[in-house]
Amino acid sequence: MVSERAISAIDLNSDVGESFGAWTIGDDESILRIVTSANVACGFHGGDPSTLRLACSAAAAHGVRIGAQVGYPDLLGFGRRFLDMSESELRDAVLYQLGALDAFAQVAGSEVAYLKPHGALYHATIDNAVQARAVVAAASEYDPSLAVLGAPGSELLAAARRADLEAVPEAFIDRAYRGDGRLVPRSEPGSVITDPAAVAARAVRLAVDRTVEAADGAVVEVHARSLCVHGDSPGAVALAGAARAALDAAGVAVHPFTG
Amino acid sequence: MVSERAISAIDLNSDVGESFGAWTIGDDESILRIVTSANVACGFHGGDPSTLRLACSAAAAHGVRIGAQVGYPDLLGFGRRFLDMSESELRDAVLYQLGALDAFAQVAGSEVAYLKPHGALYHATIDNAVQARAVVAAASEYDPSLAVLGAPGSELLAAARRADLEAVPEAFIDRAYRGDGRLVPRSEPGSVITDPAAVAARAVRLAVDRTVEAADGAVVEVHARSLCVHGDSPGAVALAGAARAALDAAGVAVHPFTG
Amino acid sequence: MVSERAISAIDLNSDVGESFGAWTIGDDESILRIVTSANVACGFHGGDPSTLRLACSAAAAHGVRIGAQVGYPDLLGFGRRFLDMSESELRDAVLYQLGALDAFAQVAGSEVAYLKPHGALYHATIDNAVQARAVVAAASEYDPSLAVLGAPGSELLAAARRADLEAVPEAFIDRAYRGDGRLVPRSEPGSVITDPAAVAARAVRLAVDRTVEAADGAVVEVHARSLCVHGDSPGAVALAGAARAALDAAGVAVHPFTG
Amino acid sequence: MVSERAISAIDLNSDVGESFGAWTIGDDESILRIVTSANVACGFHGGDPSTLRLACSAAAAHGVRIGAQVGYPDLLGFGRRFLDMSESELRDAVLYQLGALDAFAQVAGSEVAYLKPHGALYHATIDNAVQARAVVAAASEYDPSLAVLGAPGSELLAAARRADLEAVPEAFIDRAYRGDGRLVPRSEPGSVITDPAAVAARAVRLAVDRTVEAADGAVVEVHARSLCVHGDSPGAVALAGAARAALDAAGVAVHPFTG
Repeated sequence: MVSERAISAIDLNSDVGESFGAWTIGDDESILRIVTSANVACGFHGGDPSTLRLACSAAAAHGVRIGAQVGYPDLLGFGRRFLDMSESELRDAVLYQLGALDAFAQVAGSEVAYLKPHGALYHATIDNAVQARAVVAAASEYDPSLAVLGAPGSELLAAARRADLEAVPEAFIDRAYRGDGRLVPRSEPGSVITDPAAVAARAVRLAVDRTVEAADGAVVEVHARSLCVHGDSPGAVALAGAARAALDAAGVAVHPFTG
Repeated sequence: MVSERAISAIDLNSDVGESFGAWTIGDDESILRIVTSANVACGFHGGDPSTLRLACSAAAAHGVRIGAQVGYPDLLGFGRRFLDMSESELRDAVLYQLGALDAFAQVAGSEVAYLKPHGALYHATIDNAVQARAVVAAASEYDPSLAVLGAPGSELLAAARRADLEAVPEAFIDRAYRGDGRLVPRSEPGSVITDPAAVAARAVRLAVDRTVEAADGAVVEVHARSLCVHGDSPGAVALAGAARAALDAAGVAVHPFTG
Repeated sequence: MVSERAISAIDLNSDVGESFGAWTIGDDESILRIVTSANVACGFHGGDPSTLRLACSAAAAHGVRIGAQVGYPDLLGFGRRFLDMSESELRDAVLYQLGALDAFAQVAGSEVAYLKPHGALYHATIDNAVQARAVVAAASEYDPSLAVLGAPGSELLAAARRADLEAVPEAFIDRAYRGDGRLVPRSEPGSVITDPAAVAARAVRLAVDRTVEAADGAVVEVHARSLCVHGDSPGAVALAGAARAALDAAGVAVHPFTG
Repeated sequence: MVSERAISAIDLNSDVGESFGAWTIGDDESILRIVTSANVACGFHGGDPSTLRLACSAAAAHGVRIGAQVGYPDLLGFGRRFLDMSESELRDAVLYQLGALDAFAQVAGSEVAYLKPHGALYHATIDNAVQARAVVAAASEYDPSLAVLGAPGSELLAAARRADLEAVPEAFIDRAYRGDGRLVPRSEPGSVITDPAAVAARAVRLAVDRTVEAADGAVVEVHARSLCVHGDSPGAVALAGAARAALDAAGVAVHPFTG
């Protein structure tokens, strides 16, 4: 199995750039030393121009690829509340965010390489075909070489494939899965895994075997090309670091799914 | 004088894309049939994503060049109130707006070709060297081929020249001038000229002779490469149309200062 | 039936105070000469502090009662897009708007006498019991003497009654009804009635007979204590004026449902 | 001097309620156990409806008086950047904030008892008579019994006195003073005092002797009725606690200046 492991490869992605003005969220500097892809907020649910510059500069300095973490225009709700935008409104809101972030990515010597919806938009585009189409339409018209990062089996990834964009499924290393491959809702007990050893082991298994053990004990196939880690608390950064170390130790090549 | 007039050339610029959500300002469709350069709002003082798309599409369809009308982040004040932003805050705010608008310009088959500050930022950068530098820094790092449109003698144009950006002075066809070449403040009587024939005559004189008759009767040289017209009321559109017709009749070539 | 008509009474309500900064919507001055209750926007979907002052002053000057037209915090969408706020978030957002508007109402020598949700919040609280409860909770804790204006049969009015608030059903004089008493959706042909004579006749019938003829010809009972008229266009103001004149001519007492 | 000390009294005030949505600033719970007056943000520079509710509830529970910490409408700049609002715009913006906060104060069983400008508005109203008048006008028309808390010698307090509002001067226990009684700007070394013992000693001296030792060694009279302490970091809370303990030990009565 050594040879198989040797060819395993995975990306680690995390949200950054979500601070706003005087308010700070996340430890971007620390998490950017761990991950290979940075989902940078674009100013609609979080992030302001100077925060975007810092995040893009730091990502570029650490060789981390930049993705546009696009969200609903809902600063107060941090993009975590469904907003019933029409297809054209959402497409235009996403395009605006893509262009704004790309300016900072380019000035930092990098580029926006992919897109990932944030919060309630992420969840909406799992099943909501109209909003999924809107997000993909903006990506497609802005740059057909953009990849789209999202949930396996989502309308978002289906729409991306139909638009000939690269569709990249991801998995969550600190979330419990159901037998059907969906996440256990946060409202249920045991939905979030906090033991570093358990999280690290799941990360390796997802990268190497492409499986995860569901809450009911079933072995579920999850064909993820990227693993999402969190960086919004010291504990989250430590968890991400443990996962990275375990992947490295297991011989998994951790590198961006883009570029 | 026919030969001299024959080689006269001027640009007409106007603000567009300043509607926001359910609120409309300006008659973009009409004004884009008259001008050659469109200062498109970027969402900070006015303009929303769908408005930016419409404005860029219409500008591109009419062969009108697109400029970024960047402003303070003050929707409530429509960018008309001085905001004491630091140099880096302002630079980043301008860069954000440039990137956002450029996404729509590119999708429309065009590009952001120049930058013009809006409202209080326009006035601040006449004398405020720090804010002028900030605006120019964003333009310069985003695209060194951007032109900067502003007031003759302003810190903004001086900073643009120092940064090797094309600095383009403009004149106002419906505003009274003082003997020193500055505008008569709006608060003073006679500061705004509303007679179409007078406005049209001033436009031709500014384009051909590069002069304007000041409020005190003095003849003032104004070396403008673009004339600013307004389009936010039916009367303004008619005034702009009269100026355009007079310029055409005088044999002045009306075309963009960019591209 | 003359005697019965003589004792008929109805309120006319309209949205005002929805302008924002440099952007104007509606002809508040004209509509406040026609209606008896003013739904004043509170700054979340439209309205800014100076607009609220003007609207409250004008309402007070015309003897028009002031209601809080509370909405989602979605300026860009003008409150017309459903936002999935939690019960406590929405309750607090409504309370904030109530207090803010009441400051202007009081300074104008009046008071906030009732509450009416705006746009998508109006529609959500017809069926969404959680959001209906949230709106009512804010009204109830702020001032138990507030009335709540809304759609007949809505969760909103049911929640208001449960909270011992006065629940006031309204009808729309320029909208087609279905046989079940609900409005024909705007997306369907014939949903909006634009003939002044027809609108005026419907207003009188709603006030006197408490019925409306549905799109399918059925006679539907609508027990409305207030009729909603629009004022966001010259045509709308004319329509409202025609309805008011017809009501006066029919001997219907047009006066506020509060105070 | 024991008897004099025995009758000394002072208020401690601090900023609270400045968190916004997902972003947290300050440790409101801890600081509200120390101070006697809470400057609660009103949503323009910080604070959102649910944060205002929490802050008002906690203040009321601890017997802390509630003041409106009004600011410029500049969330991104946290109200720390001068905004050139007109007198009427600013008056209306302050009135809006007063009413919004008062709703939460009342629901918590308390009331808005005073007003204190935040950040750049605080600094502007030291010398800017127009903006000082605007702030005071709103307070005066909303509730003539409101006190105004501000810098000794400021235009703000002068305007408050002219409007027959109670004008309450405050001092800063952790800031260095110049010989003329003004603060040493933050940009200069030594402007902020971080030694708990020194801060505590200054607090007692300000409360008892009404003096402070300036940076140049001069003894400066500061007739403050309230001392401002910070609570936006664990160190700041500890400093405030040390000052409170020293005041209590010195026999200074620490109680609100209002009510």
